[in-house]
Amino acid sequence: MSLLLLLRGAGGARGALRPCCPWGRAASRRGLSSGAGVRPGRRSLLAGLAGAAAALAGLGLARRAEMVSREPVAPSLGEAAEDEDELSRRCGDFMAPPVSGLRELRSRRQDVRSRMEMLIMETQSQVCRALAQVDRGAAFTVDRWERKEGGGGVSCVLQDGNVFEKAGVNVSVVSGHLSEEAVQQMRSRGKTLKTKNGKLPFCAMGVSSVIHPKNPHVPTIHFNYRYFEIEEADGTKQWWFGGGTDLTPTYLNEEDAVHFHKTLKEACDQHNPELYPKYKKWCDDYFYIKHRGERRGIGGIFFDDLDSPSKEEAFQFVQSCAKAIVPCYVPIVKKHSRDPFTPEEKLWQQLRRGRYVEFNLVYDRGTKFGLATPGSRIESILMSLPLTARWQYMHTPPEKSREAEILEVLRNPKDWVH
Amino acid sequence: MSLLLLLRGAGGARGALRPCCPWGRAASRRGLSSGAGVRPGRRSLLAGLAGAAAALAGLGLARRAEMVSREPVAPSLGEAAEDEDELSRRCGDFMAPPVSGLRELRSRRQDVRSRMEMLIMETQSQVCRALAQVDRGAAFTVDRWERKEGGGGVSCVLQDGNVFEKAGVNVSVVSGHLSEEAVQQMRSRGKTLKTKNGKLPFCAMGVSSVIHPKNPHVPTIHFNYRYFEIEEADGTKQWWFGGGTDLTPTYLNEEDAVHFHKTLKEACDQHNPELYPKYKKWCDDYFYIKHRGERRGIGGIFFDDLDSPSKEEAFQFVQSCAKAIVPCYVPIVKKHSRDPFTPEEKLWQQLRRGRYVEFNLVYDRGTKFGLATPGSRIESILMSLPLTARWQYMHTPPEKSREAEILEVLRNPKDWVH
Repeated sequence: MSLLLLLRGAGGARGALRPCCPWGRAASRRGLSSGAGVRPGRRSLLAGLAGAAAALAGLGLARRAEMVSREPVAPSLGEAAEDEDELSRRCGDFMAPPVSGLRELRSRRQDVRSRMEMLIMETQSQVCRALAQVDRGAAFTVDRWERKEGGGGVSCVLQDGNVFEKAGVNVSVVSGHLSEEAVQQMRSRGKTLKTKNGKLPFCAMGVSSVIHPKNPHVPTIHFNYRYFEIEEADGTKQWWFGGGTDLTPTYLNEEDAVHFHKTLKEACDQHNPELYPKYKKWCDDYFYIKHRGERRGIGGIFFDDLDSPSKEEAFQFVQSCAKAIVPCYVPIVKKHSRDPFTPEEKLWQQLRRGRYVEFNLVYDRGTKFGLATPGSRIESILMSLPLTARWQYMHTPPEKSREAEILEVLRNPKDWVH
Repeated sequence: MSLLLLLRGAGGARGALRPCCPWGRAASRRGLSSGAGVRPGRRSLLAGLAGAAAALAGLGLARRAEMVSREPVAPSLGEAAEDEDELSRRCGDFMAPPVSGLRELRSRRQDVRSRMEMLIMETQSQVCRALAQVDRGAAFTVDRWERKEGGGGVSCVLQDGNVFEKAGVNVSVVSGHLSEEAVQQMRSRGKTLKTKNGKLPFCAMGVSSVIHPKNPHVPTIHFNYRYFEIEEADGTKQWWFGGGTDLTPTYLNEEDAVHFHKTLKEACDQHNPELYPKYKKWCDDYFYIKHRGERRGIGGIFFDDLDSPSKEEAFQFVQSCAKAIVPCYVPIVKKHSRDPFTPEEKLWQQLRRGRYVEFNLVYDRGTKFGLATPGSRIESILMSLPLTARWQYMHTPPEKSREAEILEVLRNPKDWVH
């Protein structure tokens, strides 16, 4: 799916990668420092831009009005100044400066496009901080990269830590013109797209993450939340959201499965009680390793092409999902990160990691499309692969074993919340 | 590519798998026993069939005459009886009984289809025996499986041995009707195929193998030799061969690379001096991990759709290639299997294994098609994956290191024989 490609994959050519940590603390090796020492620098960067904010906010509002009817009204001049402080304060907590830059974000700060960029940067930061705290050892390496054709991203990776084998949280915000292949793919998904001279301007952004812990009793999590905008030849804009959060345990722990699904359900139910059941099923269907007849994990939620009931409401829903990531996962990590385990349990985890690789390389639409797109940032796309994996010919767990128990659930997904 | 699918992949549904070792020694755990104790049983199986041999040999000839003009003349009655003894003697050395059964093979023993089946069974046996001897520890597990739709295979796997981490040598001989998808794929490769009610009877067979050693100084080898026949609506038969042998070292050893390529070149040169350069380039082009800008290994030979100058000559060429497998590889294994290595060298091997997985799951046409085909024998298709692999974010070897040296060759293939 082109959407995922652009979010996870598309980046500059590898030569164009520029690790950049202007916040000064991005690649610190022992956890995340407070960053207090760099605040003056950041403030001076913002100072020269403040004057243009109100006018730009108005432009932002005018743009929004074309698309959706239920957004908040434009802020007054005083509110705009307050918003600016709020914006820079929020940016100060990010892993690296936002891709679009403060000036641009401020200029259209009420626009969903800017609010989504703030949300994905914030999600990245919250997840990385929560994980680094649990790991108590390794720090996230932060790579801020730019894309020649427009936009860029921030890739945060923690490798070989105390608790985590490999944890990657990637943000990308890219824009430009969709390739003919991407347009074809979107059309094949049922979208009507009017191009001008074969061109279609787009903007895509998202946060994408896979966390592989060391202990086989701590499950792997994956999440991805993304937003897409395209502008057709006649000026019409199309937009949609996609995303999801899903869990891949090596061994089944029913209590954890219920906690995970309930937390996601609560996030969905705030918006519409029909969402969780629908997106839970979609998740089970999507993460299906067809040649094995197994799901990759015990599911969660998955959705795509979400463009209703309004842009504002869809954004609010995505925000609730993003905010549910830490509470649905971190308690499970804390609960099991010191569980004892046997070499046999570690081996079973490695075999399940092999299945994870199979799903990601053979079926995952984002990975496939990303790999097929020239100029993609391969290291960010394949960040999702585990540090280590194993394939053993004809491995079949004994009947009634704990390995057979999880396989049963992967073959026949369960309802965890009723 | 449908061709590969059918050879490597297509098997019965997993439930239909029947491990079957009527030769009695197939799954012996300490190397390969001589099998002398089972010979009488095998002979009695053959005894009842001998009388029909001459007549069936004639039928075989009549069939052959439709296809090719340069085959040997039909044997006399006395020669036919000698051939039968020869046939049963050769079968006695196989890892398991041939898929088609002795009766059928005897009935058309001069036909390339039968000779190819004998060749792939013999190749499997020669390679497995040579590897088991080098390993001096683990034995090959032999699974003989049948395919509901017609045909079957013999999968031989040695796992976690002294020298080999995972060595798989797989034979399959399948027939039936091509799926609509397979027909489309063949057409997209330029083949004109006249179906009858959308159906196209086919027969495909091949031997396919990947050998992953433990020591990072011993390279991985892959080979695959296959034969395909289809019968069009008007009774016309199309046939072709495909195959190749290629090497994937973790570290470059120029002497080994030269030995490997020279041995393959000599096999090719017996038939036509143009073959090696052409198939060497094809190999470099095929085993290309596009998203990495690297080849999987240092190449070898690769060819497909080989249907000239005659069926007999094409078969003879494939036979020469198959006979070159042991001499091009086993001396390299023997030379390095006791080389000392460091944990860093083992780690680099694991990272290269990760790339091997990427190629096989993302690009290899046979694997992709096999996984997409219902009823494939997944364990045989994915036998090609290493026991263990690793993915490390942003791993870049230091300049002028031995790791950088092999990368340079993978990025810019070399001519090893001039």
